[in-house]
Amino acid sequence: MSGKGPAARPAYARAGVDVEAGERAVELMRSAISSTRRPEVLGDLGGYGGAIAIPPGYREPVIVSSTDGVGTKTAIAQALGRWDTIGIDLVAMCADDVVCTGAEPVAFLDYVAVGRLEPEAVAALVGGVAEGCRQAGCALIGGETAEHPGLMETGTFDLAGTCIGLAERDDLLDGSAARAGDIVIGLASSGLHSNGYSLVRGLLAEWELPLERPFSEQLERTLGEDIRIATLAAEPEHGLATLGEVLLTPTRIYTRAVLAARRVARAAGGDLHGVAHVTGGGLPGNAPRAVGPELGVRLDPSRWRMPAIIEVLGALGGVAGPELRATFNGGLGMLLVVPPDAATVAAVLEAVDAAGTPGAVVGEVDETASLDGVRYAEAPLRFADASGG
Amino acid sequence: MSGKGPAARPAYARAGVDVEAGERAVELMRSAISSTRRPEVLGDLGGYGGAIAIPPGYREPVIVSSTDGVGTKTAIAQALGRWDTIGIDLVAMCADDVVCTGAEPVAFLDYVAVGRLEPEAVAALVGGVAEGCRQAGCALIGGETAEHPGLMETGTFDLAGTCIGLAERDDLLDGSAARAGDIVIGLASSGLHSNGYSLVRGLLAEWELPLERPFSEQLERTLGEDIRIATLAAEPEHGLATLGEVLLTPTRIYTRAVLAARRVARAAGGDLHGVAHVTGGGLPGNAPRAVGPELGVRLDPSRWRMPAIIEVLGALGGVAGPELRATFNGGLGMLLVVPPDAATVAAVLEAVDAAGTPGAVVGEVDETASLDGVRYAEAPLRFADASGG
Repeated sequence: MSGKGPAARPAYARAGVDVEAGERAVELMRSAISSTRRPEVLGDLGGYGGAIAIPPGYREPVIVSSTDGVGTKTAIAQALGRWDTIGIDLVAMCADDVVCTGAEPVAFLDYVAVGRLEPEAVAALVGGVAEGCRQAGCALIGGETAEHPGLMETGTFDLAGTCIGLAERDDLLDGSAARAGDIVIGLASSGLHSNGYSLVRGLLAEWELPLERPFSEQLERTLGEDIRIATLAAEPEHGLATLGEVLLTPTRIYTRAVLAARRVARAAGGDLHGVAHVTGGGLPGNAPRAVGPELGVRLDPSRWRMPAIIEVLGALGGVAGPELRATFNGGLGMLLVVPPDAATVAAVLEAVDAAGTPGAVVGEVDETASLDGVRYAEAPLRFADASGG
Repeated sequence: MSGKGPAARPAYARAGVDVEAGERAVELMRSAISSTRRPEVLGDLGGYGGAIAIPPGYREPVIVSSTDGVGTKTAIAQALGRWDTIGIDLVAMCADDVVCTGAEPVAFLDYVAVGRLEPEAVAALVGGVAEGCRQAGCALIGGETAEHPGLMETGTFDLAGTCIGLAERDDLLDGSAARAGDIVIGLASSGLHSNGYSLVRGLLAEWELPLERPFSEQLERTLGEDIRIATLAAEPEHGLATLGEVLLTPTRIYTRAVLAARRVARAAGGDLHGVAHVTGGGLPGNAPRAVGPELGVRLDPSRWRMPAIIEVLGALGGVAGPELRATFNGGLGMLLVVPPDAATVAAVLEAVDAAGTPGAVVGEVDETASLDGVRYAEAPLRFADASGG
């Protein structure tokens, strides 16, 4: 990893920078990093940078790149002493922005800032980044671990990353291909993902909620016993989890599902017409990005399930309905706009399901661009496709 | 800039995240960002990422990328309330790593983390990044500003970035082209650059040195009046500066000088055989990267001038000679290895000078790889080139 340091310099010890700890961290993270290798990776060129060959066959290759962080979700990870999953969130934030443009994410670089370099903790953080890279299909080609003694407290960290993707110029997506009447497929979110954590921390403090409380107990207190039972049937993975663990659930990575969806849409003679990654701003803040400024999206909320953690936080914050769907991700982490052709819709639904990402028809592209980009159906929408409704 | 955020969400206000401030910061930084534009830039694809077309003409294009930060130099910037130059340091750290591999830096993405989003301060930080990008010839195609209320203090910030470069595969440099007898050209550093600041902060505290003290006064106290007079003749730009201002001097960016040096070396029938960016670890930690593991570098310290600030800090820390050249950058920010051909050496020296970067012949490649990669000449070296000596 570039910047993860040349030889130890004795004068540094008294300045509070522990070069040996940095070297041990690099040692600990080595196998995680090599597990992300892709055939295009050319080695690290003397530590100056990672290199990726552009595979032959592109007519007009374009590099698409996105930088992001994980915001204050880090505070939950710190409070739980869990360092090994937040890197997945980081890759999700960056790679799933890149894949929305029609590019294939191929490489990733991470930046870790810590108050004090604890090799095991940093290796766990980078291990999470490597896990995210494997899920997204990216090679982890570089990174930097910065120790900021005196500027950051021991035990705190910040995490940022950059994803690099490749696209054929003619294949770039910007929503301009969307047409009124196109079908909107929503891919389920795995929980809060990586947005809204400043609000979460406010609610935790306001209600004095301990992170170690069983999630099912909090669910019952907030929403009642019936909803607890129904919810845990739909989310059995959260049956034994604490509130903190549910809050820390890694962001789902949609990269492979989106790439597979595009392949089958093209094989069916169509294409994806637009893709939106649902992050800060929720559904109204992001759905418009899949369809361009002239069109809107009409969604039917009866067609997908809101994750229980979002319902619980909404109830605690006194926020429901459209406002709740604007505050977190609204239960859908990714929206795909496809032509209104039953075979294409069915093929895309099958492809995302095969990629491990549950999807459903959730709405349609609408001629009326509303102020906040999303309208909700007053009655259940009926679609001319194979998905029921 | 990706991630510099979609629409304001009302629920965020009470969580301490100021979305309006973020939007004002984006507004303020807009013209700085567009000043870095290159013709290859394709627009920001709905905010998901920056895109750069790979210019035609590459046979086997390779992407080289490097992520880095500026370490605790941020603490000096914070103490002085100067936010507009540290972004130059950031671009230097990343772009000058990329150019060492034989790639041309073409794009940059920044990550700014702040305790509280003060639009003018963030715009000044990104303005510095844009200035660095103009110096390095990179387009600023993306970035992220993260507000961490509660995790970082108001008035503190961290800065990281990623540079993306392009190279022809056959043109990649890794030091393996270096041969014993090759000439080493050193490019002068502008001061401390971006390494060693934890040590600097330790020395400032140990000696209770105020940042607002005139640098020339500190110079005289530490090194005596004769050296003050001689030094300020060589560094007239520091005549009126405070100690803090000298410590904050931006890192010199060598990108254009290195690219120009390679062009003229090739035009003269040769090539650069290796390039080393001198960062953490100083000369012994970095010179070996220009020549590969089988060779060493022999330098003649009488052939370049050490910046006064490094001499002052060395004297305060009781460090001199080889140890001093291992602690900071040793007075040379970049080393170029060129074939021992007088015309090539002269052409390279002229090219780096025309790019505004003073250079000199400082040593030669040596058959004996020493333990720390650098040996120093016991008597002045004599070179078979046009540069005197």
